[in-house]
Amino acid sequence: MTTVGILGGGQLARMIALGGAPLGLRFLVLDSVEDACAGQFAPLLLGDYRDENALAQFSSEVDVATFDFENVPAESAEWLTQFVPVFPNPRALATAQDRLAEKTLFKELGIPVPAFEDITSRADLEAAVEKLGAPCILKTRRLGYDGKGQFRIRDNSPASIEAAWDALGEQAFSTGLILEAFVHFDRELSVVAVRGRNGEFQTWPLTENWHVDGVLSASLAPARVDDALAARAHAYAKSLVEALDYVGVCALELFCKDGELMANELAPRVHNSGHWTIEGSETSQFENHLRAVLGMPLGSTRMLGHACMLNWIGEMPDPTPVLRDACGHWHDYGKQPRAGRKVGHATLRADTPEELSRALERVGGELARKAQVSPVIHALSN
Amino acid sequence: MTTVGILGGGQLARMIALGGAPLGLRFLVLDSVEDACAGQFAPLLLGDYRDENALAQFSSEVDVATFDFENVPAESAEWLTQFVPVFPNPRALATAQDRLAEKTLFKELGIPVPAFEDITSRADLEAAVEKLGAPCILKTRRLGYDGKGQFRIRDNSPASIEAAWDALGEQAFSTGLILEAFVHFDRELSVVAVRGRNGEFQTWPLTENWHVDGVLSASLAPARVDDALAARAHAYAKSLVEALDYVGVCALELFCKDGELMANELAPRVHNSGHWTIEGSETSQFENHLRAVLGMPLGSTRMLGHACMLNWIGEMPDPTPVLRDACGHWHDYGKQPRAGRKVGHATLRADTPEELSRALERVGGELARKAQVSPVIHALSN
Ligand SMILES: Nc1ncnc2c1ncn2[C@@H]1O[C@H](COP(=O)(O)OP(=O)(O)O)[C@@H](O)[C@H]1O
Ligand SMILES: Nc1ncnc2c1ncn2[C@@H]1O[C@H](COP(=O)(O)OP(=O)(O)O)[C@@H](O)[C@H]1O
Ligand SMILES: [Mg+2]
Ligand SMILES: [Mg+2]
Repeated sequence: MTTVGILGGGQLARMIALGGAPLGLRFLVLDSVEDACAGQFAPLLLGDYRDENALAQFSSEVDVATFDFENVPAESAEWLTQFVPVFPNPRALATAQDRLAEKTLFKELGIPVPAFEDITSRADLEAAVEKLGAPCILKTRRLGYDGKGQFRIRDNSPASIEAAWDALGEQAFSTGLILEAFVHFDRELSVVAVRGRNGEFQTWPLTENWHVDGVLSASLAPARVDDALAARAHAYAKSLVEALDYVGVCALELFCKDGELMANELAPRVHNSGHWTIEGSETSQFENHLRAVLGMPLGSTRMLGHACMLNWIGEMPDPTPVLRDACGHWHDYGKQPRAGRKVGHATLRADTPEELSRALERVGGELARKAQVSPVIHALSN
Repeated sequence: MTTVGILGGGQLARMIALGGAPLGLRFLVLDSVEDACAGQFAPLLLGDYRDENALAQFSSEVDVATFDFENVPAESAEWLTQFVPVFPNPRALATAQDRLAEKTLFKELGIPVPAFEDITSRADLEAAVEKLGAPCILKTRRLGYDGKGQFRIRDNSPASIEAAWDALGEQAFSTGLILEAFVHFDRELSVVAVRGRNGEFQTWPLTENWHVDGVLSASLAPARVDDALAARAHAYAKSLVEALDYVGVCALELFCKDGELMANELAPRVHNSGHWTIEGSETSQFENHLRAVLGMPLGSTRMLGHACMLNWIGEMPDPTPVLRDACGHWHDYGKQPRAGRKVGHATLRADTPEELSRALERVGGELARKAQVSPVIHALSN
């Protein structure tokens, strides 16, 4: 009997546990909140990621540790390695947790990135805005997610810089800050990839993503791009995971502009843009993450048709239009509604792009969510 | 928040809970053994199905009740209906629990059945063997499963009848007995069907099954039969579930001989011959069972390619050949090994019969289980 420990008990841990149950695995989830939704299907250990007692108990009950939450302190991960194998390794985790470190690595590996500057003071910020030009985005180096910890600077007026510094300046020494040039991208793409303990590497087909207010709204797979572009994206992901000796599933987020790719960030975990793999591919990202961290052979990442994932943010919509759709698959994470919270998603899967497009029309229409589905329908029509 | 109560905590309950988690459901499983494998992923209430206190606590915590175990006393199910909706309804359950009642119903509905006789005494048995001829099978009316509670009578010699009566005679008044003519069938088939609370009816494609020692060994879907035969099988299932006002998933087991169908039994629950639906169809039998009992719209039962399920009995084989196969899906129920026990299964899924056949060759070869896969490979070659 193998028990997998997961740091963090949100929907990712929940879907990892559900995806791993058929492999005969047991799970233990460490989370600091009692109603962590993974706890509905896996034993939950209540505790803080920084609490050595909690970590010690956790490590004594599991055979391997992994993450649902990418912002678990890298020191906690490092501490755990004394007692259990931890995947991805703490160095990879630490790199992906820090926008400056990850962008520096992207550059070293020859992966194009938007221009960026390390910001430690207001004077730095002024100079960097001057250098990169506006618009640009000030972001915390650490702990940002779902567009949180970001501030857009529209122009290089003192007032705009002032507003950005007011919003994030006090985090210059806690999380650190980075300024990034704003990319007027044509589309956003992600590579969901998996690497086994023995170096075996696989990617799922490239995914196109749409964000609203910095939060993922819809994903389409396979992305409607030419093979050469997809191959380049996959090659970037491969060089990254190899450089980091990464084990498990990760996602590389990319901007695409005029046929050129730029790396945005690396998510060191299963990723929202890979949720469609549950129904849309032979092996889901959740199962393959477990296979990877346990040293099992990886499962096929081949797609079954065409898939679109629609995120439900804040509260669940009426399930009926999705449930009664022949292409529809419903995912309710069992969470309480709360503004901005990811509470569930739907995946529509079809054999052809045309069928998928019609399913999106139906579901988008019945749910009165045309704005959410229309960019995907548009992409499918090209 | 909706909680589904499941009477019985084996692999079926486990797969129901795993299949229903994405719908946002919670579960409570009632079982009398502490290590019931569904308890690894759903809260387990320890108690006997006949214990009113256990049933009372169970019913107070659930919104609807259903079954993993078809031999829950129909009186317990009936008792529960005072407090919660129970699906399938206790009358349907009682009918399907009793081979005499179900075969009588099959006949009433014009569904062909093997000749059978009710047996209440040894004299009955002698007369019935004379009437039906040998070989024939003596079975308990109730509580049989996986070939248990059956005795084959090879010839009509006193010694053979004696042996049969020695084996099962003392159950004539507890479970009841039935004698059935032995059918020299060409193949065994099953219809896995689902009916919603509003009468909506769906079937998955017909499945062909192979048994070893009365226990399911392999299933292939779609069965390689002509459309007319499949339509007849589906029509039998439809008339049955309508007659019983059945709600949920059930399976009708059929014998096929010279192009004619005969009904063997009705399983009033999700069924081993429908496990392939997890990967091989748009909506699994487990999810659709829940949709049905909760009054949700049913999901599409469309197949994705061709699928074969191989049962693992007694102990799990080496998972590697299946895990590394591009068509392979592994299911380990988390049970302790024990002779004759269903401990897991694998599903191989492919786009074409030829690919599926090759996958069976690979896996059967590597696991040294040629005897298990060869009838399926043979069926695929026709
Ligand atoms: N440099 C940028 N140029 C343009 N848009 C950006 C830039 N950085 C972020 N965004 C937008 O904000 C979204 C979220 O930002 P990201 O850096 O990925 O942070 P998070 O960790 O919150 O996902 C991106 O997916 C993209 O839509
Ligand atoms: N009348 C019969 N003639 C031939 N084979 C039979 C007959 N009844 C049962 N069998 C064989 O035994 C298997 C198990 O019997 P069944 O009646 O389905 O009981 P169980 O409830 O154990 O599944 C069947 O699938 C079939 O292979
Ligand atoms: Mg991002
Ligand atoms: Mg049977």
